[in-house]
Amino acid sequence: MPIPGPLNPSLRVLLGPGPSDVSPRVLAAMATPVLGHLDPEFLVIMNGTQDMLRQTFMTRNTLTFPVSGTGSAGMETCVVNLIEPGDQMLVAINGVFGQRMAEVARRSGAAVSTIERPWGQIFEAGELHTAVKKYQPKVLGIVHAETSTGALQPLDDVGAICSEHGTLLLVDTVTSLAGVPVEVDAWGADAVYSGTQKCLSAPPGLSPVTFSPRAVDAMKRRKTPVQSWYLDMTLVQRYWGEERFYHHTAPITMIYGLREALLMVQEEGLPARWARHERNHRALKAGLAAVGISYTAAEGHQLPMLNAVRIPPGVNDLAVRRRLLNEFGIEIGGGLGEFKGKVWRIGLMGQSSRANNVLLFLAALEQCLAEEGGRTSSGAAVAAASAVLANHE
Amino acid sequence: MPIPGPLNPSLRVLLGPGPSDVSPRVLAAMATPVLGHLDPEFLVIMNGTQDMLRQTFMTRNTLTFPVSGTGSAGMETCVVNLIEPGDQMLVAINGVFGQRMAEVARRSGAAVSTIERPWGQIFEAGELHTAVKKYQPKVLGIVHAETSTGALQPLDDVGAICSEHGTLLLVDTVTSLAGVPVEVDAWGADAVYSGTQKCLSAPPGLSPVTFSPRAVDAMKRRKTPVQSWYLDMTLVQRYWGEERFYHHTAPITMIYGLREALLMVQEEGLPARWARHERNHRALKAGLAAVGISYTAAEGHQLPMLNAVRIPPGVNDLAVRRRLLNEFGIEIGGGLGEFKGKVWRIGLMGQSSRANNVLLFLAALEQCLAEEGGRTSSGAAVAAASAVLANHE
Repeated sequence: MPIPGPLNPSLRVLLGPGPSDVSPRVLAAMATPVLGHLDPEFLVIMNGTQDMLRQTFMTRNTLTFPVSGTGSAGMETCVVNLIEPGDQMLVAINGVFGQRMAEVARRSGAAVSTIERPWGQIFEAGELHTAVKKYQPKVLGIVHAETSTGALQPLDDVGAICSEHGTLLLVDTVTSLAGVPVEVDAWGADAVYSGTQKCLSAPPGLSPVTFSPRAVDAMKRRKTPVQSWYLDMTLVQRYWGEERFYHHTAPITMIYGLREALLMVQEEGLPARWARHERNHRALKAGLAAVGISYTAAEGHQLPMLNAVRIPPGVNDLAVRRRLLNEFGIEIGGGLGEFKGKVWRIGLMGQSSRANNVLLFLAALEQCLAEEGGRTSSGAAVAAASAVLANHE
Repeated sequence: MPIPGPLNPSLRVLLGPGPSDVSPRVLAAMATPVLGHLDPEFLVIMNGTQDMLRQTFMTRNTLTFPVSGTGSAGMETCVVNLIEPGDQMLVAINGVFGQRMAEVARRSGAAVSTIERPWGQIFEAGELHTAVKKYQPKVLGIVHAETSTGALQPLDDVGAICSEHGTLLLVDTVTSLAGVPVEVDAWGADAVYSGTQKCLSAPPGLSPVTFSPRAVDAMKRRKTPVQSWYLDMTLVQRYWGEERFYHHTAPITMIYGLREALLMVQEEGLPARWARHERNHRALKAGLAAVGISYTAAEGHQLPMLNAVRIPPGVNDLAVRRRLLNEFGIEIGGGLGEFKGKVWRIGLMGQSSRANNVLLFLAALEQCLAEEGGRTSSGAAVAAASAVLANHE
């Protein structure tokens, strides 16, 4: 085997469903020399990271920290710590990540019920209430931002429905955290997980989670051990809590990166960050509309950071995405599951949510589409986006 | 909450049980801009990383890749993919990590038997053979390098014993990989996991694993799904194999770091790397002997990269370790479990295994010990180590 050459990847503009572009500040933080996982200085870094995660999740939950794995590990952490074999869990499914949560729940021994909506649609509070009344589940799992469909699920009334029936509310905020309001305490959510590689714009590898006191009580009342030793909160919280008891070696460098990314969130401020995501989304949307491209999710329920749009008829999905990548260095995402070949997913997340990226992407896309049709680009998409951006300045 | 200050940790010399010092080359690699996890250039990086992992594990196993979690996630990956509820698993326990493996196996539904040895001792092939004959387990789990005791378990005859009884051999090489020979194919091992933060000297966060064709067959014959969705090899290998099917977002930056660390292993060469670990271990040992400090593991079974030694009578464990850290910036490890307060664990792993570190550590330790006794340092430890190092040059 020849020894591979030095690491020298092409520079990309990451406009897919994650990872998003990582700020040079965060990259520099990840080159910081490593401390031991029980070093007093590292414990201070852990505390600061937890404080900033609580601010970002808008919660006072003590048990708030990054799981040592990607977003899917966070999902599994929430499920296996709340569920014991035979427990009822209701999962709301309107895309890939609801399906995944149901599968994780089944593997944890839950008796899983589902409530389903066509992909791209959202659940009304009324139907969630009916389902919770019917199944009386220990846990209701629901996805705030469905990365496969681009739909944003309103959660304002769901916490009250759950608490009325003694149900714990588990929410996937992998794609939404730090891009739209994620109000864990105001929602009355009990277990919430996210990822670092979306609107936080740290590299993938950690999953911020937060558990309400009610969720912590439920863990304490367990009669069986959590099936995963690695993800067992009763053990992990002894390290992230005051005891600092060794469980597994924390991923120091990833935590450095997350901490720096959270500092940038604090400096910008959540409201300004949400407004930035919204503004760039509106500009992109205006540009896409100008070339006849529409969204899969209904008006009013579209994620600003993940624009799932219908591929225009006759356009070659793979050819366009390959050209965007190879000629322009731009990555966008294809469709997942039943949206494969039918949908593009254009991410404007965290560091990637910039006016420059909107303009560049629209210019590149228009050129690709025009040449597919044997025309030249009219510039209509860029013009429409520019108009929105100008009005916002 | 005030916004925390910039990341600015003190520079440490990491001579504990891991993490070890990370080379500036690896740190620089981790500041490389992020690619998407399905980018064609990233797929090439994955292939190169897998090739180098196979070389390092001394195996031809196709299913060889880094799990997206720390060493304990690798342990859990090996166990939950091989075990179905009710399967017999035999675990050899002579320290914390054998205990942990037995606990992980119980949580995966295995019927767990154990064979035990006092901490610091190793298992003879004969007793392992007797136990495998008696229990006829589906899986035998054993720790190659017990990080809690500093004992190196010989494995030359264990694979043959297992294969005679149709037992799969699962080996923990978290601390040994790239520091002493880890010969997966020659051993006849079926599932082997390691960590990045020991002798590979990448930051903590990934767990390299490798599975033999026999282990892959056993996974294919499973009647029940793997209890962990995140760690399910039947799904994960569709991403790390030829299909490149999305499972979870790979921790890109950690893989950059591991790749660079593996490049450094390739450039040094495994035999030279083993010899370096052995040489620095001998120097450290001579220095410690000069001040009357002895090892917990028997002569001939001591890990070169993890020197577990008895704290001299009357010496204050915490005071010395705190002083090493605060005055000299040197981290060593305390004892785990029944060795707490009785044992120091001095790591000379990967990038940390350097003659300079041996001399610096011995000088610092001698000063701490002398002042504890109201004396001044004699320099005897440094002199003894220097003599060994000089003979080796």
